[in-house]
Amino acid sequence: MAGMTKFKAVCAYDGTDFHGWQSQPGGNTVQDFIEARLKTIFKAKTRIHGSGRTDSGVHAKAQVFHFEGNWSHPPADLLRALRSGLPAGIQVVRLSRAQKGFHARFSATGKQYRYRLYEGFAPPWDSRYCYSLGTRKLDSDAMSAAAAVFLGEHNFTAFGANRGDGSEDNPHKDMRRVDVHRNGGKLMIIFEGSGFLYKMARSMAGTLIDVGLGKLSPDDVATILAGARRTEAVTTAPAKGLWLERVYY
Amino acid sequence: MAGMTKFKAVCAYDGTDFHGWQSQPGGNTVQDFIEARLKTIFKAKTRIHGSGRTDSGVHAKAQVFHFEGNWSHPPADLLRALRSGLPAGIQVVRLSRAQKGFHARFSATGKQYRYRLYEGFAPPWDSRYCYSLGTRKLDSDAMSAAAAVFLGEHNFTAFGANRGDGSEDNPHKDMRRVDVHRNGGKLMIIFEGSGFLYKMARSMAGTLIDVGLGKLSPDDVATILAGARRTEAVTTAPAKGLWLERVYY
Repeated sequence: MAGMTKFKAVCAYDGTDFHGWQSQPGGNTVQDFIEARLKTIFKAKTRIHGSGRTDSGVHAKAQVFHFEGNWSHPPADLLRALRSGLPAGIQVVRLSRAQKGFHARFSATGKQYRYRLYEGFAPPWDSRYCYSLGTRKLDSDAMSAAAAVFLGEHNFTAFGANRGDGSEDNPHKDMRRVDVHRNGGKLMIIFEGSGFLYKMARSMAGTLIDVGLGKLSPDDVATILAGARRTEAVTTAPAKGLWLERVYY
Repeated sequence: MAGMTKFKAVCAYDGTDFHGWQSQPGGNTVQDFIEARLKTIFKAKTRIHGSGRTDSGVHAKAQVFHFEGNWSHPPADLLRALRSGLPAGIQVVRLSRAQKGFHARFSATGKQYRYRLYEGFAPPWDSRYCYSLGTRKLDSDAMSAAAAVFLGEHNFTAFGANRGDGSEDNPHKDMRRVDVHRNGGKLMIIFEGSGFLYKMARSMAGTLIDVGLGKLSPDDVATILAGARRTEAVTTAPAKGLWLERVYY
């Protein structure tokens, strides 16, 4: 295909109103909207490749994707065109030409996710973007102790989930950072790792919340991790608290 | 009515999905939702009285209202009951017993509004809560100079609007504070005054934005204010950037 250029783009989205990242027959996914917009711009069906999926309701500050298109103008013009025709909940933040070998998923060396928690009742303008605990309180010291259990290379099968589509992923991941920050009644858990299994960030967050609520101890978390199989002991935290913060290359 | 207690309550709302504060036949207003909830709690039609109306799309960090109800339990229980049955966009933040003579509107001595602006494109999770200027830039020094024009006691008819329902308000208001704050590409205009005419905060904001864009000078604003009648020179800024921040008593 002569004249095709590869582009790398970064987008932000409010996951509330979309059925996740990944294109699906029913549409209404972030990928579907961006592909529809690119089809209009390029006047040709254009497939985009994301760094990975995000579940329905999960937000992204900086999801990365790549695609190829026939575009002879400056990339800044393509960025402007891409910005104007998307739903308000999706925003393309940056766009640049990419190396031939670049792949948003396979070139990634790691990802950062954040999970936002709120002790009490989050105000209306924040309630879509964090998980509110109501009157329950979290022991953030216990959460920090349990967070350390995840650090390093492990088989994370106990915190993954079956996609139900036959796809499989290497369950061995390197967790480089798991920090629990508290600022008054607002808490944030930062996860940085080589990769994440399906529902893994939400499952680690849900487990740390259970530790914060006194339902599990840090030792329990170590036992669950070592068990290397998914059990009912692991809770998946609500999607709305999760943010894909950064993809590393 | 024996056993009736007067309560003062403070509520926060995301104005995006409501048709403003004030009850109307079509419903879907903040007042309608709170009154419906109180009717369920008290098992009697209950009228609430707000500090004033807010337009469709305008947000509130702390709108104040009062009402009377037959309630023999602690106010904290009423607050809990009021919190649980409202749409996610409305949150009752505080509630206490009020003095017999208290009236949310007539006892108010002043109000603070804030108008949020964004140079560039606000991210999806903020785009409902501020006015994005896209590629246009604002001269915030000129805006500050024009803001000073509003300070003190004036006839604000030029920045008011007709409600269309025959109601009239004294156009003489005392503007105690009009500050323009810039933090990088984020701007905030703070208005504090004895009272605000219908659409007055949005009209002052729209005028200051026009000054920031170079369409009007601070002297033009002084001329418009002195003219004491509404003309096409005054732009009403979009509702979504406006926040009712505080009501003073």
